[in-house]
Amino acid sequence: MTHIYNFSAGPAVLPKEVLAQAAAEMLDWHGSGMSVMEMSHRGPEFISIYKAAERDLRELLAVPDNYKILFMQGGGLSQNALIPLNLLGHKPDGATIDFIHTGSWSAKSIKEAGKYAKVNTAASSETALPPQAEWRLTPGAAYLHMCTNETIGGVEYQPDFNDPRLKDVTLVADMSSHILSRQIDVSKYGVIFAGAQKNIGPAGVTIVIIRDDLLGKALPICPSAFDFKLVADNDSMYNTPPTYGIYIAGLVFQWLKQQGGVAEMERRAEAKAKLLYDALDASDFYDTRVAPANRSRMNVPFYLKDESRNEAFLAGAKARGLLQLKGHKSVGGMRASIYNAMPIEGVQALVTYLNEFAANAVK
Amino acid sequence: MTHIYNFSAGPAVLPKEVLAQAAAEMLDWHGSGMSVMEMSHRGPEFISIYKAAERDLRELLAVPDNYKILFMQGGGLSQNALIPLNLLGHKPDGATIDFIHTGSWSAKSIKEAGKYAKVNTAASSETALPPQAEWRLTPGAAYLHMCTNETIGGVEYQPDFNDPRLKDVTLVADMSSHILSRQIDVSKYGVIFAGAQKNIGPAGVTIVIIRDDLLGKALPICPSAFDFKLVADNDSMYNTPPTYGIYIAGLVFQWLKQQGGVAEMERRAEAKAKLLYDALDASDFYDTRVAPANRSRMNVPFYLKDESRNEAFLAGAKARGLLQLKGHKSVGGMRASIYNAMPIEGVQALVTYLNEFAANAVK
Repeated sequence: MTHIYNFSAGPAVLPKEVLAQAAAEMLDWHGSGMSVMEMSHRGPEFISIYKAAERDLRELLAVPDNYKILFMQGGGLSQNALIPLNLLGHKPDGATIDFIHTGSWSAKSIKEAGKYAKVNTAASSETALPPQAEWRLTPGAAYLHMCTNETIGGVEYQPDFNDPRLKDVTLVADMSSHILSRQIDVSKYGVIFAGAQKNIGPAGVTIVIIRDDLLGKALPICPSAFDFKLVADNDSMYNTPPTYGIYIAGLVFQWLKQQGGVAEMERRAEAKAKLLYDALDASDFYDTRVAPANRSRMNVPFYLKDESRNEAFLAGAKARGLLQLKGHKSVGGMRASIYNAMPIEGVQALVTYLNEFAANAVK
Repeated sequence: MTHIYNFSAGPAVLPKEVLAQAAAEMLDWHGSGMSVMEMSHRGPEFISIYKAAERDLRELLAVPDNYKILFMQGGGLSQNALIPLNLLGHKPDGATIDFIHTGSWSAKSIKEAGKYAKVNTAASSETALPPQAEWRLTPGAAYLHMCTNETIGGVEYQPDFNDPRLKDVTLVADMSSHILSRQIDVSKYGVIFAGAQKNIGPAGVTIVIIRDDLLGKALPICPSAFDFKLVADNDSMYNTPPTYGIYIAGLVFQWLKQQGGVAEMERRAEAKAKLLYDALDASDFYDTRVAPANRSRMNVPFYLKDESRNEAFLAGAKARGLLQLKGHKSVGGMRASIYNAMPIEGVQALVTYLNEFAANAVK
């Protein structure tokens, strides 16, 4: 096997232990004679897998009892439509949704929600989190949507929603790219959603965590397969769920618990991010664009000051097995995604390369 | 490993060779150092997997060049909404959709479509295909929807759309549970869709085959992630696709080609179905309810005439490793799903058991 470190923004690196277990169980899960892929979603084997995954995620994030956890299909992107389709049914015509715009993903959410309601961008910045005191909130808004970690631009919230104006606001958070990497107070949110393919498992699974009282408010035009209440009432089996992806997510949840849970992931994320940002800050050769207080610990975009060296940088990285470092095409430059499953050794290898490439270029 | 035959209606049995290859490649696909689950969907490795899957499916079904193949999320159930959301945009208010009702799945499609348009049930029967001459079609209907194999009730079309009234009608076919088991003339359809978890691969992948001229007709309320034109224009990567499921589907497509393609699957399906129906017909102990000409070759529902023996029948089957034979709760009885990956030896084992159970019960 080629030894590599995979810095992809998603689908992304998974724990080797999880992949090894999945390989070992592929043809025969626990003596059943079946692959998990072959199991009826209604059978006792898969039901046990599903229940364990749900229970472990609930434990990892300390999800209160009055929240449902849904395992859906469609990806984070689909939620940009499915959230308004599911939350606006109880509002009279003319509902407004507030948004905080912090980068590409919140921008997409704003555009899509505009199909279903009036939208108000309450604050906007792609390089720093707009101060909460400056958010121009709409009285009576249906909800306030934020992307708490912008995968492309690299702006991350340090959650602190003590603004008294937010006391009665329903917060909807897209946590796709940093869920399970920091402790959160779920009770401050109405809905949390996340595509799995960063910190949870394979692409094709979407997690929705929703407070009970927000169920049953779908617009009549919401497709039944994506109606949160129908999904919740049927334990995510209103339609056939993405069974194998849920199984892999469940193995990741077990791995997280074995590693020490979200508190330990948070500690590691801070250590990994500090190592990388310190190296970037210490060099005149590289540049970052996000305000230090709002730098993502998961997705680290950076730029070579001399961008003519970009191709040489990427080729040298690839030769060392440091893969997928090219930045998103919409912003250019480089990006290192360092999710839970990225060991600190991978970040150390990247830092070593950053320093050597800079030193060699200066010669 | 327990030796079993898995008669689940879906998720369902997969070829052992496919599972073995997936296990062997789990931690390192082709020397890349990555699992397929860890690959960026934009990277050259996954793009090559995607293109091969698309090409092989196109070859297997002889899909003409003026049709796009989409790999989506959401399951067949979601298409009950996504088809009208994608096809009605060019119709003035008051569009009507015609349906042929042949069982549970077409019934669900009719109900869901009613959210978006007027619906007309042009013909209805759950035990036989209504004769085409008796279909009460709506002049100027947006399209005609049919479920060409009812997974629960077991009614299957023998495609023959030579009715001259259908010449200018856009046919939409839900082929979820018999796609790739018979040769079809794709050019007779406007849209073909199928959830993967019967004859294609794992749950969480949905195939849509759509004629070019039907793209770009979405209603404004159609979620972008499920807009067929956006999906088609972005090679199924408008949002992150279910990459691992597509990889498994691709392995199944390769297996199908190695086995002799769809013509060979059709031959095997006929042989397997004949073996099973002949045994049921020859016994006074069992009953079937679908007209012989419309019996599904994939999903074989049957009943013990003495239903008090149902539990004993299922327990005895399980003891022999014949799993998942219980019928759908909405219709009761038994059901044997015998998809492409079910070897004839599994059907032979079932027939042996059917005869022995009947003989022992009569004693």
